[in-house]
Amino acid sequence: MHRYVVGVDFGTLSGRAVVVRVADGAELGSAVHEYAHGVLEEALPGNGRLLPPDWALQVPEDYREVLRHAVPEAVRAAGVDASEVVGIATDFTACTMVPVLADGTPLCEVPDYRDRPHAYVKLWKHHAAQAQADRINRLAEQRHEPWLGRYGGLISSEWEFAKGLQLFEEDRELYDLTEHWVEAADWIVWQLCGRYVRNACTAGYKGIYQDGAYPGPDFLEELAPGFSGFVPEKLEHEIGQLGQRAGTLGAEAAAWTGLPAGIAVAVGNVDAHVTAPAAQATAPGQMVAIMGTSTCHVMSADVLREVPGMCGVVDGGIVAGSWGYEAGQSGVGDIFGWFTRTGVPADYARAAETAGEGLHEHLTRLAAGQEVGEHGLVALDWHSGNRSVLVDHELSGVLVGLTLATRPEEIYRALLEATAFGTRVIVETFRESGVPVEELVIAGGLAKNELLMQIYADVTRLPLSVIDSEQGPALGSAIHAAVAAGCYDDVPSAAKSMGRVRRGVHLPDEERAQAYDALFAEYRHLHDHFGREVPAMRRLRAVRRAAVARRHDREGSTA
Amino acid sequence: MHRYVVGVDFGTLSGRAVVVRVADGAELGSAVHEYAHGVLEEALPGNGRLLPPDWALQVPEDYREVLRHAVPEAVRAAGVDASEVVGIATDFTACTMVPVLADGTPLCEVPDYRDRPHAYVKLWKHHAAQAQADRINRLAEQRHEPWLGRYGGLISSEWEFAKGLQLFEEDRELYDLTEHWVEAADWIVWQLCGRYVRNACTAGYKGIYQDGAYPGPDFLEELAPGFSGFVPEKLEHEIGQLGQRAGTLGAEAAAWTGLPAGIAVAVGNVDAHVTAPAAQATAPGQMVAIMGTSTCHVMSADVLREVPGMCGVVDGGIVAGSWGYEAGQSGVGDIFGWFTRTGVPADYARAAETAGEGLHEHLTRLAAGQEVGEHGLVALDWHSGNRSVLVDHELSGVLVGLTLATRPEEIYRALLEATAFGTRVIVETFRESGVPVEELVIAGGLAKNELLMQIYADVTRLPLSVIDSEQGPALGSAIHAAVAAGCYDDVPSAAKSMGRVRRGVHLPDEERAQAYDALFAEYRHLHDHFGREVPAMRRLRAVRRAAVARRHDREGSTA
Repeated sequence: MHRYVVGVDFGTLSGRAVVVRVADGAELGSAVHEYAHGVLEEALPGNGRLLPPDWALQVPEDYREVLRHAVPEAVRAAGVDASEVVGIATDFTACTMVPVLADGTPLCEVPDYRDRPHAYVKLWKHHAAQAQADRINRLAEQRHEPWLGRYGGLISSEWEFAKGLQLFEEDRELYDLTEHWVEAADWIVWQLCGRYVRNACTAGYKGIYQDGAYPGPDFLEELAPGFSGFVPEKLEHEIGQLGQRAGTLGAEAAAWTGLPAGIAVAVGNVDAHVTAPAAQATAPGQMVAIMGTSTCHVMSADVLREVPGMCGVVDGGIVAGSWGYEAGQSGVGDIFGWFTRTGVPADYARAAETAGEGLHEHLTRLAAGQEVGEHGLVALDWHSGNRSVLVDHELSGVLVGLTLATRPEEIYRALLEATAFGTRVIVETFRESGVPVEELVIAGGLAKNELLMQIYADVTRLPLSVIDSEQGPALGSAIHAAVAAGCYDDVPSAAKSMGRVRRGVHLPDEERAQAYDALFAEYRHLHDHFGREVPAMRRLRAVRRAAVARRHDREGSTA
Repeated sequence: MHRYVVGVDFGTLSGRAVVVRVADGAELGSAVHEYAHGVLEEALPGNGRLLPPDWALQVPEDYREVLRHAVPEAVRAAGVDASEVVGIATDFTACTMVPVLADGTPLCEVPDYRDRPHAYVKLWKHHAAQAQADRINRLAEQRHEPWLGRYGGLISSEWEFAKGLQLFEEDRELYDLTEHWVEAADWIVWQLCGRYVRNACTAGYKGIYQDGAYPGPDFLEELAPGFSGFVPEKLEHEIGQLGQRAGTLGAEAAAWTGLPAGIAVAVGNVDAHVTAPAAQATAPGQMVAIMGTSTCHVMSADVLREVPGMCGVVDGGIVAGSWGYEAGQSGVGDIFGWFTRTGVPADYARAAETAGEGLHEHLTRLAAGQEVGEHGLVALDWHSGNRSVLVDHELSGVLVGLTLATRPEEIYRALLEATAFGTRVIVETFRESGVPVEELVIAGGLAKNELLMQIYADVTRLPLSVIDSEQGPALGSAIHAAVAAGCYDDVPSAAKSMGRVRRGVHLPDEERAQAYDALFAEYRHLHDHFGREVPAMRRLRAVRRAAVARRHDREGSTA
């Protein structure tokens, strides 16, 4: 009799479940369920209350719906008997935060608070806490807080403290009602097994938990009077290691999923980090890039180094026993999608249709015919801000070199290249900090774009391996489920049997690499000018905020 | 019995004739004829020989076709008797250069040279002589040439000497065969009256003719050995003042046009300069902006000042007896057209169609709903290079501030604003040089866009007047025809009867003007950074040229 595990990957717009055979990692069936509310960026559901710029919220019931629909569908698709499933594990976007009551009920599910933006889940790409992040960074630097270097010198506005401080300052009543400030990665595990366990990965990367401690009360009190209670009252909780069992599947969750009550439920995990074992990439020098709407880079190493602008280094943050490094690019596939949706004219759409191609595919084919640099363009891939190495979400996208002859496929290619340049900046920063990168292991939906992959190989001069699974994070979760269920001793040995990767699929071409060096020098110039030297983009954001406020005033006064 | 005159305006893509009543300037009929070959930017006609980047050629027979079609059609449309037409005058794009034999035959009409790019007309926006312009400028600065200051310190790659030097260096055989290096403005007059007269306007603005002399033989010889013959052999010729009679209509041209042989033919003129009298804007402080694919600014003044980056100051260059100043923006409507053609998705095209709007109109309506700065964008309007005040056609367009929420109408508005900022840079530079601007008088097709006009008023804090004619240049030419025919003593008195303008149509709003000050500061920053401090755009052009050369090599070697 075979044993099976279920991995569930909670992404930005949907959740995906996969049923995997414990013995060899064979993926037998999967199903996707889209979040009914997607990402709330314009307005709340129900009363339609408008959100300010840079907000991004979600509705937690959408996550439960994934358990109710995707899991049983995946089991059906796999054609296995649910009774043979021995464990379930999940991974989530992060840092995605849920304000909850003592029993785990999200505040937005309490009828009184349904119309309050701060009652909802703050998705990873909620970027409205930059002012708070700025203050955290200034004060930490001033006070020489020892944890700051572990985050490359900058705490992101995406993380637990910045988002928590925003809640504290903008809706004190809801802050006071929040019993736990919970990562969605842990909230979903709580839903499954009825127990709140804080996973070591997000506690470290997003919760500033280092060497067994959070930032101290003095720091928090100086940051904002009254905020010193944040850690003991809302954050501090039992930590679970990756691959450990958080508990067993409860009756309600068993009913949702159709899985047997009592099977192992693993400690929560993050979509990027969980992918490294799925791609058998847990050794030093193997940087895993999970490329989708955004890109996360994760890499294990034996050494502890402080890399400027990395997202963080956490002991056991990817695999127990190694230092786990994380970096990221906050917009990648999102940028290509935005351009394809808003920047490509009707005649291209028609030509793509005639050729039986999607618009991405069409643009990629046209762009692939060009020599490196032929478009004369260089772009900055900051349409969603910059995560590494600048850690600034007030930054924005740039295009330089436009002429009246510039064509859509040229801009598209420049955007693909800009994200590759962004990766090169990260790789070089790691290398300069004593954490060498020898190989890029690509996972995520963008691995399918051959032109993009070749550009990454040429720009970084690194060999590219590609995960041999369409659902890397879910497979990674399944690996953790197998460990939590006791089928393997630890995650690396499970990964050896259950993970898979194709090595050296794309190799750099030296002639193109040299041509890219010239373009990368221009990227670097723009990167340093707009990212470090001149706060023009921050000023533009301020202008924009003031304009939006004027419009709201005007509309308010005429309403 | 009424008397009539015909004005013919030769634009970038078509020629337009208008029949005007001498007594009051009433426009009685007009007709447009498009150039069959348009602008040659990719390849020559016939053999399809590919052109390098930045070339822009035309076919002179297309100009004659305008005389054959548009003039008789305009007379028919006017319902006047051709025998009552007493004069004809023309205006042209400039600097647009025709290499001709002694009898005025363009080299491209000699069968042997039909496949040689340098045998064709080099249109004003032919930008492939930047290397030559750079050398002219360096040497002139070194030698302290006295004429340099009259051109704001920089000679443009668009003008007679740069284009002539390119011909000299790249196709010596055709250079040697060229008997006259003729402005198309004068070539068309030559076709009409059989006499070559060089007009004072282009001789001054484009031909570096100042205080009765061209650049001297020493300068030219040092520039390129053998080039000192350029002035005496190809350029030097009788000068005619604006409004003078160049000759009388010849038999062949009379047959083309259907007009009476022997009527007055005026000295050639330039589309921008001829518009000032049409808009009754010949007084100091009245800057006429002729806004179409590009913008030309012309203004008369009593004083001679050297304005950095202006196109030039010429004695009698607009109206005899005043100093005529010219400045320009090399891409304006062209940029909006490029964006609308290549950067707006199918759903916008559908929405525009549903609303019964053109795409420009649709984007304008959507953009008009925004507060100043709400899009968070700032653009550089250099998609076709920068004429004033940087005089550099290696510059290119920039967009800063893009986010995943940026919409097409926001980019469109940012592009409209960028061109207004470009005008503000020019206005401020004139002001700082002691040539104050008190009023903008708008002519050209873009005057119809109310949002654009309001943006110009708000950004420049100047009152905007608008010419009250759909065909400003052609009306201006007609005014000059009336003077050449002896119906008026001089151009200003003809303009008083025949020109027309609506004053103060758009006035600046102080609140918006203040909001624009913040965005203009960002524009200024980008302007100085990319235009003066860092040659990133020149490097990108070099990368592009090298890439195109590699592709040509590759294609050649596999052909």
